[in-house]
Amino acid sequence: MAGSTYGTLFKITTWGESHGPAVGVVVDGCPAGLPLTDTDIQEYLDRRRPGQSRYTTARKESDQAEILSGVFEGRTTGTPISILIKNQDQRSRDYGKIKDCYRPGHADYTFDCKYGIRDYRGGGRSSGRETIGRVAAGAVASRLLASVGIRVTAYTAAIGAITVPRSAYNYDCIHENDLYMPNNEYAAKAAAYLEQCIKNLDSSGGIIECAVTGMPAGIGETVFDKLDAGLAKAVMSVGAVKGVEIGDGFRAAVATGSTNNDAFQAADGQVTKKTNHSGGILGGMSDGSTILLRAAVKPTPSIARPQETVDRSGSNTEITITGRHDPVIVPRAVVVIESMVAVTLADLLMANMSARMEWLERFYCNRGK
Amino acid sequence: MAGSTYGTLFKITTWGESHGPAVGVVVDGCPAGLPLTDTDIQEYLDRRRPGQSRYTTARKESDQAEILSGVFEGRTTGTPISILIKNQDQRSRDYGKIKDCYRPGHADYTFDCKYGIRDYRGGGRSSGRETIGRVAAGAVASRLLASVGIRVTAYTAAIGAITVPRSAYNYDCIHENDLYMPNNEYAAKAAAYLEQCIKNLDSSGGIIECAVTGMPAGIGETVFDKLDAGLAKAVMSVGAVKGVEIGDGFRAAVATGSTNNDAFQAADGQVTKKTNHSGGILGGMSDGSTILLRAAVKPTPSIARPQETVDRSGSNTEITITGRHDPVIVPRAVVVIESMVAVTLADLLMANMSARMEWLERFYCNRGK
Amino acid sequence: MAGSTYGTLFKITTWGESHGPAVGVVVDGCPAGLPLTDTDIQEYLDRRRPGQSRYTTARKESDQAEILSGVFEGRTTGTPISILIKNQDQRSRDYGKIKDCYRPGHADYTFDCKYGIRDYRGGGRSSGRETIGRVAAGAVASRLLASVGIRVTAYTAAIGAITVPRSAYNYDCIHENDLYMPNNEYAAKAAAYLEQCIKNLDSSGGIIECAVTGMPAGIGETVFDKLDAGLAKAVMSVGAVKGVEIGDGFRAAVATGSTNNDAFQAADGQVTKKTNHSGGILGGMSDGSTILLRAAVKPTPSIARPQETVDRSGSNTEITITGRHDPVIVPRAVVVIESMVAVTLADLLMANMSARMEWLERFYCNRGK
Amino acid sequence: MAGSTYGTLFKITTWGESHGPAVGVVVDGCPAGLPLTDTDIQEYLDRRRPGQSRYTTARKESDQAEILSGVFEGRTTGTPISILIKNQDQRSRDYGKIKDCYRPGHADYTFDCKYGIRDYRGGGRSSGRETIGRVAAGAVASRLLASVGIRVTAYTAAIGAITVPRSAYNYDCIHENDLYMPNNEYAAKAAAYLEQCIKNLDSSGGIIECAVTGMPAGIGETVFDKLDAGLAKAVMSVGAVKGVEIGDGFRAAVATGSTNNDAFQAADGQVTKKTNHSGGILGGMSDGSTILLRAAVKPTPSIARPQETVDRSGSNTEITITGRHDPVIVPRAVVVIESMVAVTLADLLMANMSARMEWLERFYCNRGK
Repeated sequence: MAGSTYGTLFKITTWGESHGPAVGVVVDGCPAGLPLTDTDIQEYLDRRRPGQSRYTTARKESDQAEILSGVFEGRTTGTPISILIKNQDQRSRDYGKIKDCYRPGHADYTFDCKYGIRDYRGGGRSSGRETIGRVAAGAVASRLLASVGIRVTAYTAAIGAITVPRSAYNYDCIHENDLYMPNNEYAAKAAAYLEQCIKNLDSSGGIIECAVTGMPAGIGETVFDKLDAGLAKAVMSVGAVKGVEIGDGFRAAVATGSTNNDAFQAADGQVTKKTNHSGGILGGMSDGSTILLRAAVKPTPSIARPQETVDRSGSNTEITITGRHDPVIVPRAVVVIESMVAVTLADLLMANMSARMEWLERFYCNRGK
Repeated sequence: MAGSTYGTLFKITTWGESHGPAVGVVVDGCPAGLPLTDTDIQEYLDRRRPGQSRYTTARKESDQAEILSGVFEGRTTGTPISILIKNQDQRSRDYGKIKDCYRPGHADYTFDCKYGIRDYRGGGRSSGRETIGRVAAGAVASRLLASVGIRVTAYTAAIGAITVPRSAYNYDCIHENDLYMPNNEYAAKAAAYLEQCIKNLDSSGGIIECAVTGMPAGIGETVFDKLDAGLAKAVMSVGAVKGVEIGDGFRAAVATGSTNNDAFQAADGQVTKKTNHSGGILGGMSDGSTILLRAAVKPTPSIARPQETVDRSGSNTEITITGRHDPVIVPRAVVVIESMVAVTLADLLMANMSARMEWLERFYCNRGK
Repeated sequence: MAGSTYGTLFKITTWGESHGPAVGVVVDGCPAGLPLTDTDIQEYLDRRRPGQSRYTTARKESDQAEILSGVFEGRTTGTPISILIKNQDQRSRDYGKIKDCYRPGHADYTFDCKYGIRDYRGGGRSSGRETIGRVAAGAVASRLLASVGIRVTAYTAAIGAITVPRSAYNYDCIHENDLYMPNNEYAAKAAAYLEQCIKNLDSSGGIIECAVTGMPAGIGETVFDKLDAGLAKAVMSVGAVKGVEIGDGFRAAVATGSTNNDAFQAADGQVTKKTNHSGGILGGMSDGSTILLRAAVKPTPSIARPQETVDRSGSNTEITITGRHDPVIVPRAVVVIESMVAVTLADLLMANMSARMEWLERFYCNRGK
Repeated sequence: MAGSTYGTLFKITTWGESHGPAVGVVVDGCPAGLPLTDTDIQEYLDRRRPGQSRYTTARKESDQAEILSGVFEGRTTGTPISILIKNQDQRSRDYGKIKDCYRPGHADYTFDCKYGIRDYRGGGRSSGRETIGRVAAGAVASRLLASVGIRVTAYTAAIGAITVPRSAYNYDCIHENDLYMPNNEYAAKAAAYLEQCIKNLDSSGGIIECAVTGMPAGIGETVFDKLDAGLAKAVMSVGAVKGVEIGDGFRAAVATGSTNNDAFQAADGQVTKKTNHSGGILGGMSDGSTILLRAAVKPTPSIARPQETVDRSGSNTEITITGRHDPVIVPRAVVVIESMVAVTLADLLMANMSARMEWLERFYCNRGK
């Protein structure tokens, strides 16, 4: 259960360490015939690229995607799509303290416990750079979903205590501010808060929200592979995420059935819901309304203050993490969450095609070449 | 991706509908040599059995577990353990409305969208009775974990707005009150609130918490199969769960790095953490401290008030759900959450044995017969 | 990798020991809407039932199938189909020697090496009774395949050196003789040979062949999950099978390209092949012609002669296996091979539906409810 | 079920087309601490490299392996090992006929049926170059196995009708002749036969054998994931393989129980077998003796003679395949078979560590950091 492969039919395998020669992903199971170019991938990678703003690490990496297989004459061929991104900023430096000490809030200690050996340079496999492969795969999945009318949109719902009220959402703003917030004024407030964090040698957490529209009803499995269960895993597998909610989430815990249930209504042969407390999922399957999920992201653990810790020899010591680090992980993680959601949906969509005999029969009758 | 099988090495497959002849589970991959009897399973099933209290459905089911395979002379043999529980309360009745209408908050509509056919009796496969198999498997996993010193304990942290403050926790009380709360006074307050809900023909949500002690550090995978990701899926796959948190969860989103990081400390050759905001997991791997997770459970969707809905022909209609239903799902779901956590940990533990060459070599050198 | 679950989308999990209370299977992922009754299952089970003829063990078992879930009003619902078959012939007896000795050619020794504990009664999990679950699942898979025009037919091609020449095949005879041979005269010769084996306190091997017609072209994956690779695993996973061939199989090793290649030809818009050395599979995918595979089955290891062996304490000893045993495994294994082929094809068929964007798009556009 | 990923705990994912920029593999789940260098990989790749002899294609490719991740300071870290091999011989040329015609014996037709689109250059994904990734992974698996004393050795047992008799085997010769035969005189005879094939514009099939020594008893699962079932799939997933045998294989079909059973014997506390008809596997688990398997390889389908076929428009036509092609696939496939066997064994070994409670308990008690 090595755990670098994700998905059943639409299956992605990421690889690479922060300071190795490259990182990448293999996307296996993408249907043949999807138009795909390096540029499609690049657009997604650019959204998580370092150096976009004051609030992201200054590491200089252009993160250029190269598609090495699975695409022929501009279309996928059904074979694995291998995407490679070279690491550029690998200058050797003094890792002294980091090499032998366990940074609080990081995977250093647990990695050592598990494997007994660790590529300490820049966090190795547990670096945020591991998510590059996820985002490249997310770009592929998003294009596949778009071709059947499904659109996945993630954004920053909160930075620390600065929360955009739902009534103030304007999705058009998401790409207008450095923080990917759906409201520019709140983004400005959040930016001011982040300045304060930087001044305090501290960092901030936040919340990422993701909305999926155009999802047909009935996607997801009824027991263990519920759509919401799959999304929860997908989102929680992103480093720094500590909580996941679907629809009303934890607010449902304090609600009553009469307020939490969504009434169905029919009009023009279409079934819809009057409200969407369920976040678009009922009994583990999509219900045709917008899927809505939220992820709680912890504050960047790398802070410039001295922190108490332990070294590999088991002695108490203190560590001060040098170098520039993002004061908040949230903005760059937005596209990572979006990608994980897209990959999960692509996988479940494909699996759903054989749910009924009538579909299987229709498929094999009308198949031809 | 039929989705009734869960796990990789410790693999469980549940089956059965609410009103079919039986429900059950096959537990495959349990190591040989674990002492196991019907009684071990029964203890767990009794915790989710209906009719335990005023706040659980009056359905009369003794839910007797029968082990049909995989155990010989009181010990597991390494082969699949099949556990069957007969359904007893299958009296035929008039399902009229339920058959053709979609109950709000239930899986009726989405199930029909997916499969086009539905065993409407008592919710069919989407009934809470599906979790019986999970609990039987959880009993096996819990015994396996106990043999290496790992203990999983779930309880009710909140019913509606009645939340037990952490400072008032007393784990000894958990089995002293009908609601499985770690404080009898709060349990009494919650009971009073539930009486109110019943009077209002309404229902309540709540929060289940689960603590795992004795977990060795370094269990879990570093990327997609993070321990927290696995737990999130496990917990979210339980019907009615709408949110999952690890450690501080959503509170981490409003924290800062300096307060959220847990300092490491060493004493007597043991590494521990001064605090446990991380909930016992760092970088997707256990860090040796208590694993803590919380699940938000929505209010029972079956309420006695009339609700607007749609029928199978696509016409607007109204439904009133008759019969006695639990005014709150939480107490009986406690053991379900505990079971899913146990199964997930058992699976990851087993997978972790081959993480290092030194372990593999030691194993195959000292193996003998 | 407990190994009692097989398949990805059409997934089966078998359980049960020879002398436990029951054996069974859970079939998960069968599309909803397939007509299915106990009788459909029974027909298949009856073909592997003991006591059918002089050449099968006299164990008295009616092997009655009960469907416990997943079928509602005569049709599958998309949920797991649990099928249970009670063991009837469990009279306690003296297992003395078998308990502590390793029978040559059986799994006793290796099972002990692996698990350290063993249900020695009748071979436990390694008994031929384990295949009952496979056959029940095969019945479901065969019905699913039949609904899209695919027919799987296995039969006995050889008993010992008595091989039916292909020119003498008459599929109508298969169910006319006890040995499931496609020629009654050869069946009579084989019966005479088996009488000789019985007289010699010996047993015979043989070859099972399986033909699949109606298979659309292009099913199977191109690399590891090739159709032939899947079939090889499926067939080799049946106890006693020691070899598998596709099409010309080992004869291809002595052929030349000019004689082994199958020329394509077109007529009336249909592409066919002039010959079928490939056995219906090219590059791991079905080519539209008949799929043909052969399995070599070893002689029954339980023979009435004294054999040298070792006991659990590691001392040399001798064992004589008492009781009546099939002098040949082949006839009863015919339906097991057929079942494993059917299950494998069902799984690959379902996976193939999402191979092309145009199919995915067409599916989600024409989907509706 | 995209099918480019193989294995459960030791999991490999290959990617790449014949004429794309590169091919490669990601090996996930290799335990941490295994010494590994580019050279270890290169040694294996050199054994399947083109241009080694007169009997292999003249395509000029040095097939240089680059490890891009998962190795730090000369040892594996437990994270995915990405290995990339650039394609060098990609000169553009006229693919005219191949583009629009289906070559007999190749995957062109079936690929088109499945995906509707095809990278026709050099066979695309169905090219023999796909196996480069398998061999690179095999190099890793072989090193892992060697560290616990398991050695996998494949060689050419026959070319056409030229079969090396077992009594004439000399494993020291395997690397002394171009054909990887365990006897130089037979290799010379086979070479002469191949010259004849070339002269006849024809090609030859053959048989590859693989022997595994040092395998502990009890590895493999008892039902679907039998060791022999896994090996059969592994070997049959290599293009051109049409048959697989374990131990006596098809000869067991004509044997009797008394000659086919292997008697156990004990000496010095060791259990061994007097013969090895079983090929080292009983009941799906290793029995401690040498594992022996054989694979039938069909003749190279690319032959220089004109062949009847069909084009994409569905018209009958003729094709003559130009360029130099291997007159026999066998010698270069030897290391591919060896690699697939090694990968399969590595995966099963790792899974076996948790088969018994006593092992699990011992592991978690003696674990420490």
